[in-house]
Order: sequence, then structure tokens, then C-alpha cells
Amino acid sequence: MTDQNSFGVLGGDQRQVALAEALAADGATVYTHGLERAEPIPGTKAVGLEELAGKSSVVLLPMPATTDGKRLNAPFATREIPLDDTFAGYLVHKTVYGGMMGRVTKTSALWDEVEWDDYSIRDEFAIRNAVPTAEGAVEIALRESRDVLLGKKVLVVGYGRIGKVLSRMLHSLGAQVTVSARRERDFAWIHTLGMRAVCTGNLADCADFSLVFNTVPAVVLTSRFLAKLPRGAKIIDLASAPGGADLEAASRLGIPVIQALSLPGKTAPVEAGRIIRDTVYHMLEEE
Amino acid sequence: MTDQNSFGVLGGDQRQVALAEALAADGATVYTHGLERAEPIPGTKAVGLEELAGKSSVVLLPMPATTDGKRLNAPFATREIPLDDTFAGYLVHKTVYGGMMGRVTKTSALWDEVEWDDYSIRDEFAIRNAVPTAEGAVEIALRESRDVLLGKKVLVVGYGRIGKVLSRMLHSLGAQVTVSARRERDFAWIHTLGMRAVCTGNLADCADFSLVFNTVPAVVLTSRFLAKLPRGAKIIDLASAPGGADLEAASRLGIPVIQALSLPGKTAPVEAGRIIRDTVYHMLEEE
Amino acid sequence: MTDQNSFGVLGGDQRQVALAEALAADGATVYTHGLERAEPIPGTKAVGLEELAGKSSVVLLPMPATTDGKRLNAPFATREIPLDDTFAGYLVHKTVYGGMMGRVTKTSALWDEVEWDDYSIRDEFAIRNAVPTAEGAVEIALRESRDVLLGKKVLVVGYGRIGKVLSRMLHSLGAQVTVSARRERDFAWIHTLGMRAVCTGNLADCADFSLVFNTVPAVVLTSRFLAKLPRGAKIIDLASAPGGADLEAASRLGIPVIQALSLPGKTAPVEAGRIIRDTVYHMLEEE
Amino acid sequence: MTDQNSFGVLGGDQRQVALAEALAADGATVYTHGLERAEPIPGTKAVGLEELAGKSSVVLLPMPATTDGKRLNAPFATREIPLDDTFAGYLVHKTVYGGMMGRVTKTSALWDEVEWDDYSIRDEFAIRNAVPTAEGAVEIALRESRDVLLGKKVLVVGYGRIGKVLSRMLHSLGAQVTVSARRERDFAWIHTLGMRAVCTGNLADCADFSLVFNTVPAVVLTSRFLAKLPRGAKIIDLASAPGGADLEAASRLGIPVIQALSLPGKTAPVEAGRIIRDTVYHMLEEE
Repeated sequence: MTDQNSFGVLGGDQRQVALAEALAADGATVYTHGLERAEPIPGTKAVGLEELAGKSSVVLLPMPATTDGKRLNAPFATREIPLDDTFAGYLVHKTVYGGMMGRVTKTSALWDEVEWDDYSIRDEFAIRNAVPTAEGAVEIALRESRDVLLGKKVLVVGYGRIGKVLSRMLHSLGAQVTVSARRERDFAWIHTLGMRAVCTGNLADCADFSLVFNTVPAVVLTSRFLAKLPRGAKIIDLASAPGGADLEAASRLGIPVIQALSLPGKTAPVEAGRIIRDTVYHMLEEE
Repeated sequence: MTDQNSFGVLGGDQRQVALAEALAADGATVYTHGLERAEPIPGTKAVGLEELAGKSSVVLLPMPATTDGKRLNAPFATREIPLDDTFAGYLVHKTVYGGMMGRVTKTSALWDEVEWDDYSIRDEFAIRNAVPTAEGAVEIALRESRDVLLGKKVLVVGYGRIGKVLSRMLHSLGAQVTVSARRERDFAWIHTLGMRAVCTGNLADCADFSLVFNTVPAVVLTSRFLAKLPRGAKIIDLASAPGGADLEAASRLGIPVIQALSLPGKTAPVEAGRIIRDTVYHMLEEE
Repeated sequence: MTDQNSFGVLGGDQRQVALAEALAADGATVYTHGLERAEPIPGTKAVGLEELAGKSSVVLLPMPATTDGKRLNAPFATREIPLDDTFAGYLVHKTVYGGMMGRVTKTSALWDEVEWDDYSIRDEFAIRNAVPTAEGAVEIALRESRDVLLGKKVLVVGYGRIGKVLSRMLHSLGAQVTVSARRERDFAWIHTLGMRAVCTGNLADCADFSLVFNTVPAVVLTSRFLAKLPRGAKIIDLASAPGGADLEAASRLGIPVIQALSLPGKTAPVEAGRIIRDTVYHMLEEE
Repeated sequence: MTDQNSFGVLGGDQRQVALAEALAADGATVYTHGLERAEPIPGTKAVGLEELAGKSSVVLLPMPATTDGKRLNAPFATREIPLDDTFAGYLVHKTVYGGMMGRVTKTSALWDEVEWDDYSIRDEFAIRNAVPTAEGAVEIALRESRDVLLGKKVLVVGYGRIGKVLSRMLHSLGAQVTVSARRERDFAWIHTLGMRAVCTGNLADCADFSLVFNTVPAVVLTSRFLAKLPRGAKIIDLASAPGGADLEAASRLGIPVIQALSLPGKTAPVEAGRIIRDTVYHMLEEE
């Protein structure tokens, strides 16, 4: 029998730990599985997979739910959790939420009978995660640079969620921020914030930046652009692999490219867990 | 014969004056009509309507192009400029851009043969105009308030273009800003900026604001909300008539409602003219 | 007999009204005199001068206490309140606080027997008043300019209290702010805030500002500087008369000089009264 | 014979390297000694101590010039550089600038004949170094925290140079900043910036902070204060040893205290070198 306010938290990294803790702090009954090697989580109970599925009214998979399409993403688990018919079978007719669920739901035909949904495709999830991502990018910039951010000429490529939050953060720290985008409406928004805008297509014409943050998952930092960067310039790439830089050219030119992925879970797991929790609450309200 | 880089600027207020001046400063040939009572505009030539239409490659109507659907909006003209077949006839086969053109193009069947377009419906136009609007709203707030903005509890109703720019501006001046919106994604954005968000539907539950800025063209400031405002509260309404406040209730409760419309043209005509110019340039490039 | 927590509020403008109201709101007994023509102040009692002096444990004179050295500064009084032996006689052995008290205390030898002090010379008073002054200056700038502040090149002359608060406020509104100062340490501070610094002595070498705010009470805006300002430039002078601009040159060059004095009392009397109240509380604690 | 525009850069860490590089980039002749193990510095010449002293018109010691009072602070030197009569003898009648010079000048009577000065005691040096220090503190905060800074309750103890720059930086990143100080004038300044102020003496009464930055070199973070901090709180101590926290109590309570000293040289040596250079230039101008 399931408690109406009970959650099963399955696998994942520090943010899944933080999620379990946040739910428990809200008074929910929380079962965990696949977090055996994390520190004990106050107010939660570690159980077997079957028990977790049986007792939880909502099962929460990590973000991303899988990295290889075969096993649950569960770095803290003592043993692997295969994504197979057995796994899916436990979840049939349950409410299951996870992040980047696509590949998970192809692992068994039984997923058709699971009431699953993906929290990572919701706008609010992505928008709020832009904050820990941007803060993580600022941390990397401060760590990697031998100079202050104040007054530094920096470029943010892309004006999506991360570009919006990151450019404003750098601007408020006193950097001279240029943002590259493609649409007139984005240029207009960048203008309203007192930042300089350039067209992503014309980047090679203005490459006077000592720090470049990329958020676009396409090769926008071409060898022509890279060749024009000043000595000592660095690139912090926030876009998923293969990222936005011509890596071969960067390597040849001696320009460091720092790949920075999944920042929320790494730099601010507490907030990242809170964001999953809030998003899940909204999804439950909408049901 | 028309010069390829010639503009006819017709009617309008100070921003149309500024538009003419900005175009002339860019080196264009500029003809004007209906601005007789404005101060002389350097580098432009006042001509008759027929001459203007004949010589200009692009004719620019004001924003809004008409206020009554019968005459051109031309407060600086020495005589009225009726919107009729004669007027439309001059413009046939010409490129004509104006603001809020809907009613103008219904004044004559000849408009079907005019290559007209509306600059005011373009995103970039509305976004950039949010800055002079927000600055004008801040000016009104500073003028009407007997207290400082720093630390003041203010509410911005609506998170569209004006709400976005205005709330950030008030926040940066040190006001305690709450923004009301309706969508989870807007709440998430407001959250990323460190401001408080409330649901527009629940405004009556939290009415502890000494200053309320409305941007929503619907009665969201109900009598129930107004009744809960603290003594001395004021409302600055930026939404087009009839605005967002229950005026009868506000009057009964003694709450001043300051209607503030068409702020860009009033408070920053130079920027407002520049915005029309830039938008027109983009429209011409896209042709 | 005096109540230990009773104040006599004498003369003054809207900020003295706000002071009386703020003290009453804190639960003090408040007597007023010389505010007859202001709106009624909730929780206070209008009395004669003798009664006020007799019943109040602390008497509060306005800021400034006098403008002509002969009469109390009391624009809301129904009749003049002369500063003479009679006036001083009422206050003998009383605690009396006022603003810019110098000339008042020279009006009678009896002031030697008054326990008076000047709240306006205290750092905290001047620092906090820089906020309503700066907000008032921003209001004037928004009102007087035909362009937006965003991106505008502005100069703030002087980096004292008002210069510090005003420059930061303009910077946060997106203006391109240059501050002029004289000392290396001020240049360093301006630098830490991401603003440009110039030497006040070299102003004439860089006059590309469409808006100049002066806070220095000496003629720093020379004819040579004024002559180099771009067309349409305006000066907002916050320094006490005769201000910082060569008025004859400004007039000849057609550059408007807007004198803006005593802004706190005019633009934010509520905060201005609160600042007097808080300063008086601190003075009483220190006794 | 010395070149009028020649500098001898002696010992030091990365910021001394950056100083040498910055001077060379300005066109000066630069000799170095005691930087043998650093990467080669473009445009400079490594020489012996005697040659450096003989050829340089100005000799620049590092910041701090010594850490033990016996040897030059020279972590990149291949061998120790003792501070003795020989060392001082080379510098007699030379212009020598260094940081924290006190102990150096007690190592030989010959220092009486050296024209030495200390750049580190100048206001401008300390003010500008507050920026790399504050950025370094933000980097540590971002790295050490498992949560975002946005919305976080943080305390900055002390409102000197570092407190001023750091609190504003945290505020602009969206943290909820409280600053502790001791003087009314500092409270007033903190108030003008929209931050909360508390009295350093009363810290134990308000300990709801998840992150505490200390800038005061005295034990202000008492065991009573530490005991009231919420679970997971961390302290970043920027004050020189022994810092501002009761370390025994912190250890007992399990509160991490991160000592962060000499941040400019570690996190932003390029800017730190530039600051020394600019300060030295000003000192030379004043001679």
C-alpha cells in the first residue's frame, strides 16, 4: 500500500541525494535505492528496488536517467541497476518522473504501461537550472583566469537560457560583456540590458575577448575566430559534446578549451535537487 | 524621380521629429510634411504631401498612424491631414511604414496597392521601446512618491516586455520588487533575477505595496486588492485604456491611479525616433 | 512637566511634517508649532510656542533652522517666528536639535544656556540624505532629457557622498558613467566599481557628455569645458549656490543649468523626516 | 650607468612576474633576479643581484618583501636571497619600493642610506587589491558551497576596503547580504546600498547565515555566534592569521573555516602586478 505523500528516489548523484533530503524535509516519506555509497540522508529509508516501487506513490529517476541506455545513472549504487523488463516491470502503473527519459523508455515494452513523464523538458526546470550553471561558469572563469573579471572583455555565445543568466551575471560583476545571437529580438533584449550584441555569424570579425563562454551546441567558434583571439584567451564551453569550438584548431593555436557540463549537479547539488523537487510538485499539481 | 536613400516623414509628434533628424544625420535625403509647428529639423526639407510622396523612396507614418481612424496623427501640422482616397492615392506603389496601421489601411481601397507594413508589430520595436517606457515609469514614480524608492515595496503586474525591463530597473535602484505573472516559466525567470514572484490571480492575498505598476490591459487590480493596499499607496498604470485598475473602487478608496501612456514619445522622443529608424532599416534590409 | 518621550516639532517644510508623523507613529507624544498650514498630522497636537517648549523633553528645529538668520524657517506657519531673546528664552535648559544651527545660535546670548546640537553635521545624516538627493537628481535627469539614460554618456563631478550614491545609481540604470575626482584613492574606488574616472582638473580635456551632474561647490565647469560639450548637453547642479558652473558662459553657450537644491525635503520628505528622526534617536542614545 | 626608465624586479611570486611583464610591455628596460624558476618573462633580462642593482634606476621588491625577516620572499629563486649588509649595500642610494617593508629595513643599518618606500601602505594599492581579493573570495564561496549564491543568506564581517567591495559583489550576484560594522556612518553607507547592517558587537543575536566572510583581524566570530549558525554553514576568513573565528569552537562544532590569504597574488596575479606597477608610477610622479 502506498502512502499518498511518498517518494521513491532512485539512483543519481549529489543532486538526487539533495532531492531526497529536500522531500524528507517537507515531511514526505522518502525511500531510496541506488544511493548506498552516498552519505546517509536524514529522514529517508534505503530499501530494495521492489520495495521502493511498491511503497512509493511517485518514483523519481535521476537527471539524466541513463548515460548509456542500458543502466540507470547511479554512481552511488553498490551494484549496477540494469534497465530491463524487470526494472520496468516494477514501475508499471506507477507515476515515474525522470530527466532525459527518452532512452530509458526504449529499454522495455513495459514502459508503455508506466505513467512516466520527463521533468527536464519543462521550461521552468531549464530556466532555474541556468542559475547554478551560470554560477558554475563564473567559478571556472575566476579559477582559470590569472586576471580579474572586472573590466575584462568577455564574450557569451548564445542568448538562450544560460546565455541570458550568465551574461547578466558577468555584467553585474563588472566585466565588459558582448553577447552573440542571431535574431533581431535578441539583439534588442541585449541592448536593453546595456550589453553589446554581435551576430553569431560574424564572430570572426570581432575577436578581442580574453574569455569566451559558449552555450551553443554547434561549431560557432571556428578556426578563423580562434586565430584572432588575443594571447592568453580561454574558452569555457557549456554546450554538450562536441561543444562549440573547433577543437583541432584550438589545440593547434594553444587555446585552452574547458568543457563544463552538468554544472548544476556538480557545483550546486542542493539547489539542483530543490529545482527537481519544485518541478515535480508542479507536475503533480497539474495531473 | 526618387532618390534611393530618401525618406518622407509624415505627421507625428516629437519622436517623428527625432526620426527625421536621425535619418538626416545618417546622410539620407529627408522630406517632411505635417511637422510645420515643430522646431525646424536640421537637414530636412518641408514639402507638400504630393511632393513628399513623389520624391521619397520610403514614406514613414507616425506611431500611432491615426488616433481617430479619420485623420493622420499629426499634432504639429498646421492643418488636418485627412485619411482618404487622395491621401492613399499619393502612396500607391510606394513603400510605406507606420505604427499601428490597422485603421489607416481601412480608410481607402487604394491601400491594397500600397506596399505598406507596420513597424510597431515587430518584436524588436516593442522590446526596445520598453526602455523609454520603463524609464518614464520610474520618473513618474520618483515624482509622485513622497518617499525614496530604495527599500520601497513595489509591485509590477505583468511580466511582458515592459514588466521585464521595469522590474529589473526598480530592482537595480534598490526597491523591493515583487512581480506578478501567470506562468511557471515566468516565475522561474523572476526567481533567477532574485525578485519575488506572485500569481496575478492571487494578488489580493498580498497587497503590502506602496507603489503598484500595472502593465496588463485587463482589470487585475480589483477592489478587493485595492482595499488591502496600505495608506498612501499609488498606482501607475502603463496599460492602454481602460487600464488594469478598478477605477471606481480606487476613487472610492482614495487611491490615486496615474495613467501613463505613450511614454516613449513623451519622455524620450530621441530614443523613440532612433528605434523607429533602426526598425525601418531592418525592414528595408529584409525586403 | 515634561514627558520623557515627548518631542516639540517646530517650523519647517514637508520633511518636518514627516518627522512629526514618524515620531508619533513610534508612540511618542508630539507637539507642533509653526506647521499650521500643513495638512493635519495624525497623532500630534498643535500648540503655542511656550506650551511646546514647556511640555517637550526635546525640541526639534527644521533643516535648515533658518534661511535668513532672523526668523525660523517655517513656510507652513501662519505667522513669522522671530529668532530673538523670547524664542531662545523658551528653550533655555532644554535639549534642542536642529539642522545648520550656526546662525540660529547667534541670535541671542541665551543660546549659551540651551543644550543644543546640530544633527545636520553628523556623517550618518549626510550619508543617508545622499539617497533622496540622488533619486531626485535622477528624476530631474529623466524629466529634462529627451533621450533615455541607458547608454547615455554622463559625468558626475565630485566623489563625495552624493557623488558616490548618484554615480552608482546612474551606472545601475545603464548609463555610461564617468566620475571626476581629485585624489588617487577616489580614482581607485571609482575603478573598483567599473566606472571611468577623470581628474577634475582636466575636465576640459574630455567633455563628451550629454548630461553633467555637479556636486562640487566651486566653479569646476569652466567656460572652456562648457564650450566643448556636445549640442543638447544639460547640467544638473546639486551644489549649493552659486554652484559649480560658469553661469555666464553657460548662458552664452545656450547650455541649460538646472539648479537642484534641498532635494530630500522636496522629493522624498517622508524619508528625509525619517532620517532626522533616526539621527535624533542616535544623538539621544549617546547623551 | 642606469637607464632612466629601467626597473629591477627582485624575487616574489606570480604577481612579481606579472609586474615585470607589465613594465616591459610599457617599454621599460626590466632586469630580474630571483625569478629563475618562473616561466621566461618576455622582454626582461635575468641578471645577478649586483648587476640588477647597478643597472636599474628603480628596484622593486615583492609584496610582502619578506615573510621571515631574514630572506627575501622569493619562491621562484634557485637559491635563497639573504637580507643582510651585502644585500642592502647593493641598494644604497637607489630608489627601492616594496610591500610591507618594515622588517626588511631592520636587517641592516645600510637601509638608512637607501631611498626606500612602501607601496603597500598607500590607499590606492589597498583599494584596488580589494577587487582581486573579493573575486577570489567569491570563487571560494562558489567552490565550497553545495548551493547557489542567488538568494543565499550571507554575512560579511567588517566594512573596510574588502568588506565594501565584497559585499557589493555578493549583492549584485543576488545573495541576501548582511554586513556587520561598528560605526553609525558605516551603517548609513550599508543602508544606501540596500543591504542589511548589523552591529559587529551583536553578531551572536542574528546568526542565520549559511556563509560568513570575515575581514576583521580579531576574534569576532565567537563560539556563541558559531553555535547559532545553521547546519552546513561555512566560514571564509580573509583576515590575516589568526583570523576572526574562534577556531577551537569552530572545530568542535564542525564548522569549516577556510583561510584565504594573499588572494590577489594567487587568483589574479596579472591584475595584482598591474596594481603594483600603477602604484609605483604614481610614487615616481610624486617624487
